[in-house]
Amino acid sequence: MAPQYAPSLRSRLAPLLLLLQIGFIVIFGFYTEIDDRVTTDDGTSFKNFYPDFQDVNVMVLLGFGFSFTFLVRYGFSGTGFNLLVAAMATQWAIVLNGIESWYYRGKIWINLRSLIVAEMCTVSALISIGTVLGKTNPVHLILIALLEVSGFVLNNWILQTFLTVRPLNSIMLLHIFGAFFGLMLMWILYREGSEKPFEKEKFDCKTGIFSMLGTVFLWMFWPTFNSVLVDNYPPGRKLEAMSGTYLALAVSAVTTAAVSMLSSPKGKLNPVHMQSCILAGGVAIGVSMPVVHHPWEAMTIGFTAAVVSTIGHRYLKRHMVLSFQCHDTCAVLSTHGLPGLLGWVAHFLLIKDFDDHTTAIRFAVFHICTLLLTLGLSLSMGIITGVLLKWNFWRSPQDRKCFDDQAFWEFPHLAVQK
Amino acid sequence: MAPQYAPSLRSRLAPLLLLLQIGFIVIFGFYTEIDDRVTTDDGTSFKNFYPDFQDVNVMVLLGFGFSFTFLVRYGFSGTGFNLLVAAMATQWAIVLNGIESWYYRGKIWINLRSLIVAEMCTVSALISIGTVLGKTNPVHLILIALLEVSGFVLNNWILQTFLTVRPLNSIMLLHIFGAFFGLMLMWILYREGSEKPFEKEKFDCKTGIFSMLGTVFLWMFWPTFNSVLVDNYPPGRKLEAMSGTYLALAVSAVTTAAVSMLSSPKGKLNPVHMQSCILAGGVAIGVSMPVVHHPWEAMTIGFTAAVVSTIGHRYLKRHMVLSFQCHDTCAVLSTHGLPGLLGWVAHFLLIKDFDDHTTAIRFAVFHICTLLLTLGLSLSMGIITGVLLKWNFWRSPQDRKCFDDQAFWEFPHLAVQK
Amino acid sequence: MAPQYAPSLRSRLAPLLLLLQIGFIVIFGFYTEIDDRVTTDDGTSFKNFYPDFQDVNVMVLLGFGFSFTFLVRYGFSGTGFNLLVAAMATQWAIVLNGIESWYYRGKIWINLRSLIVAEMCTVSALISIGTVLGKTNPVHLILIALLEVSGFVLNNWILQTFLTVRPLNSIMLLHIFGAFFGLMLMWILYREGSEKPFEKEKFDCKTGIFSMLGTVFLWMFWPTFNSVLVDNYPPGRKLEAMSGTYLALAVSAVTTAAVSMLSSPKGKLNPVHMQSCILAGGVAIGVSMPVVHHPWEAMTIGFTAAVVSTIGHRYLKRHMVLSFQCHDTCAVLSTHGLPGLLGWVAHFLLIKDFDDHTTAIRFAVFHICTLLLTLGLSLSMGIITGVLLKWNFWRSPQDRKCFDDQAFWEFPHLAVQK
Repeated sequence: MAPQYAPSLRSRLAPLLLLLQIGFIVIFGFYTEIDDRVTTDDGTSFKNFYPDFQDVNVMVLLGFGFSFTFLVRYGFSGTGFNLLVAAMATQWAIVLNGIESWYYRGKIWINLRSLIVAEMCTVSALISIGTVLGKTNPVHLILIALLEVSGFVLNNWILQTFLTVRPLNSIMLLHIFGAFFGLMLMWILYREGSEKPFEKEKFDCKTGIFSMLGTVFLWMFWPTFNSVLVDNYPPGRKLEAMSGTYLALAVSAVTTAAVSMLSSPKGKLNPVHMQSCILAGGVAIGVSMPVVHHPWEAMTIGFTAAVVSTIGHRYLKRHMVLSFQCHDTCAVLSTHGLPGLLGWVAHFLLIKDFDDHTTAIRFAVFHICTLLLTLGLSLSMGIITGVLLKWNFWRSPQDRKCFDDQAFWEFPHLAVQK
Repeated sequence: MAPQYAPSLRSRLAPLLLLLQIGFIVIFGFYTEIDDRVTTDDGTSFKNFYPDFQDVNVMVLLGFGFSFTFLVRYGFSGTGFNLLVAAMATQWAIVLNGIESWYYRGKIWINLRSLIVAEMCTVSALISIGTVLGKTNPVHLILIALLEVSGFVLNNWILQTFLTVRPLNSIMLLHIFGAFFGLMLMWILYREGSEKPFEKEKFDCKTGIFSMLGTVFLWMFWPTFNSVLVDNYPPGRKLEAMSGTYLALAVSAVTTAAVSMLSSPKGKLNPVHMQSCILAGGVAIGVSMPVVHHPWEAMTIGFTAAVVSTIGHRYLKRHMVLSFQCHDTCAVLSTHGLPGLLGWVAHFLLIKDFDDHTTAIRFAVFHICTLLLTLGLSLSMGIITGVLLKWNFWRSPQDRKCFDDQAFWEFPHLAVQK
Repeated sequence: MAPQYAPSLRSRLAPLLLLLQIGFIVIFGFYTEIDDRVTTDDGTSFKNFYPDFQDVNVMVLLGFGFSFTFLVRYGFSGTGFNLLVAAMATQWAIVLNGIESWYYRGKIWINLRSLIVAEMCTVSALISIGTVLGKTNPVHLILIALLEVSGFVLNNWILQTFLTVRPLNSIMLLHIFGAFFGLMLMWILYREGSEKPFEKEKFDCKTGIFSMLGTVFLWMFWPTFNSVLVDNYPPGRKLEAMSGTYLALAVSAVTTAAVSMLSSPKGKLNPVHMQSCILAGGVAIGVSMPVVHHPWEAMTIGFTAAVVSTIGHRYLKRHMVLSFQCHDTCAVLSTHGLPGLLGWVAHFLLIKDFDDHTTAIRFAVFHICTLLLTLGLSLSMGIITGVLLKWNFWRSPQDRKCFDDQAFWEFPHLAVQK
């Protein structure tokens, strides 16, 4: 197929990117400062924090980027747009997260912690993007990222201000927020004819391994992702978070394989399960981390999450398309949505240290409100974003160009397509 | 070829995995605890150790996983089964390594050090698995991993208890243990007709690069692997171990290239040499590390290891198949076996600080016993495991399904095989 | 095409490698020592430095290695020769960088810092190699690396001794040195008929993603590359360098995408831009780092660098071939050369803290001399190296074997080329 002119890019995406980027530079110029209010011993703490920052960075750019490469003709878009979106969303998240600091102290301070928090907001956006990957153009993706990050930061602020949720706990709801935001997106952006897979929505032996590469990176560095923001007080909390995540992921991988084989008509492993559901343990333990103190708790959560996620993927994905007209490219609902909810439930069940009934009930009410608020905000922001994206102005790609790099990339020296 | 029902997976592997996993959760529930017996300054030491742990983790999951992807139709199995085996074997190794602590103190303590040691036991199992990759089903791999880890932990315990070998030194024998365990496996599991390569036992341009990716990760993080457990006493020991390994690997890479060209009939480089023999220096220096204090010693060991490994691969691999009926998929014998033995010899030759003749002879006797015990135990455990795997109950794959993902994975949306 | 005997390898490269390697071992044996002159608190500082060393190591071996894999038939050579050259050049750089220490103190001390500086010299050589990749044989590459490293170390010594440039600043000129050294190489080694692309000089969907992998690794770890040698004095300098680089790279990625679409006749993205020009921000900020203290400065530099680099690649690459007979395989001039110069200019414009006019003029003269000296030395070393490589003795590959692995690698079990 001869490549054609791409209207959505030159006259929509390029001006949008330039405008936003120049805007960001101006905002950063007036309102941000690098955090040099450090004492002498900061040398140590910077060095202690920096490898963790890099692990999170690798997850965002490489982990998510390459787990989006499984589509046989969409590899450049998967990695390239992921990089583009991450670069944009992180800048936006730095600004939004700093509004409070700007309000009280006149400056947004940039340090390693603020960069890590910004990257976590970006992860939330990347999860949403997984639901509509291949069926949207990059203008859509940028808009989704900006609105999703805004919604997620707003949600954090509401939870922390009105429900006194701790920052770490509200940030870890990113899986739930991202998944349900994405659910609305795919529902609104549903295309007729998605009941049977798109012509190019498939993977081959090589792209599957690229995707496995991304998954392995996510799997390896997930213990960092869950433990990086944990205060090491009382000492050992960080080790608890890290080794709990590690064990949950290990159990998750083994369980996913077993359930995948048991639920397959031919008794075989499904590569998609090994590329997404093995991460379910990390998601669930992330959400329930504050109350997990023993290895067996972490492992049981990992076990349950893998069962829920694998069965969810096996039966739910198909059902969602047929009954609810929701087509989920990267199986986000079963990888992040269900295990996230499970983690919320685990948090509920495992918490023990109450003084009396009143605190227990108080906690229960707050915990339920946290979930309801998060779900409500993510669903409504998802609807708003979805409706905005329906607007024809953004030139949504035609059905036959879905999942195809050719629509967005020029290949002057490309070898003949084999 | 239409995919068919896979008897070995659903009715053998899935129940085995579930049973073992639930068993592990129960054991962990009763006997393990996360190590919170930490003083306040642990925050620092956890942070100091954590990046090293991640390097080892990356080697186990990504390094070994992707160096197993070179087979043209076995990429999913290479990475997927590696992940599965690693998740299983590490849990098992944590339990076994903790038996002594459980016996004396009633609990198995999980901390970063115990996770790293467990991952190293896993490496030993992955080395063995390299010998039979593609000719076995995943049930076999899980059994090999569990038995190999058991044997290796037993070997460590015997060496440390009866021969007072230091923990670090006995752990570094993992290369020798893994390789000779694997040697017995491939001898017993030999298939008639392996004299000429299997139909699908080949690589192509793309899978070769995936494999190179794994090798590069192993090569880059090998200095961490060798130095992570070194006590930094006297100060500088860790730097010695790390930079010695780095230099040995660099020399190894250069020497491998030269010897590969000199020994090739057409004077060309062999990609397999650049993917396995360049690691020989890291193996040899790992085994001989306690006595290597000068850069030239490390470099000479790297040089010799590369020569032995490359020549070994060029001539030994073919010879092993024809004369001894040992078919070695990943050239483990020349990558880990021979350089491991060379490291043992180097340890023997380079040790100097003896007070008198008696200590020297005492050391020599102990050092020889160490090797003989390790070889004896690895060979006998290898035979036991091999015989167990011969049992028809495990449904060994047919010859024509060797080295083929189709036997184990379902590909619902797979692009037409080009 | 049947593989044939490769004269350049067996009788040229293999003896050269062995000779050099044995020579290095002898030199290291007599003159180097591992740096054990450490105080007790070194344990901490080694651990603090080690993750950064690994980041740089990953950039050299994986980042550059895989960004050289984009050529459809040159993947093994891209990664393999990169590893070989890096292993060789780093040893050579350790020796050369240590000459001064050897002269005054009789020993070359090896520690993490000296390894990192040596790897940075290697990066300079790898940049040059990018210009002639595929049109040379590995003997050429080894010679280029050795001579380039020699020139670069000489340049550092001259700048530091006669112009009192700080070590960090002179090392960061590696981008300019490497690019202009490479410019001369490609000019002298120009082949007739390069106006139209070589038969095999193209990429396909899979090799493009391998190359993207390398780029993403470079992009992710560039903040480490720029900040690793920064003294953390006054405290916060390291954070400034690191977060400045991060922001510049993020802006660079976004701007590259926009400019690439605006300058494309079809309004599409060019994959090569997303694989090279997104790094321009890191290059420019690296050269100008000492004077960048505010986020907006870093971001503006990133913005300008991306514009210059993308437009440079779009129009300059073609122009260089037609008018100046310079064929640049990896677009080194627009990725490292122009942004490097831009960084030099930014350094000039942003410096502020002058006491009076005299110091300002003094700085200007010194700053201009620094550039002129670097350009002069890199261009003249490039010419010398180029002329040496023209010598027929090295058996330059024929035109039809350019960009082809078959000329250098034996593929005994290679799957039939699909």
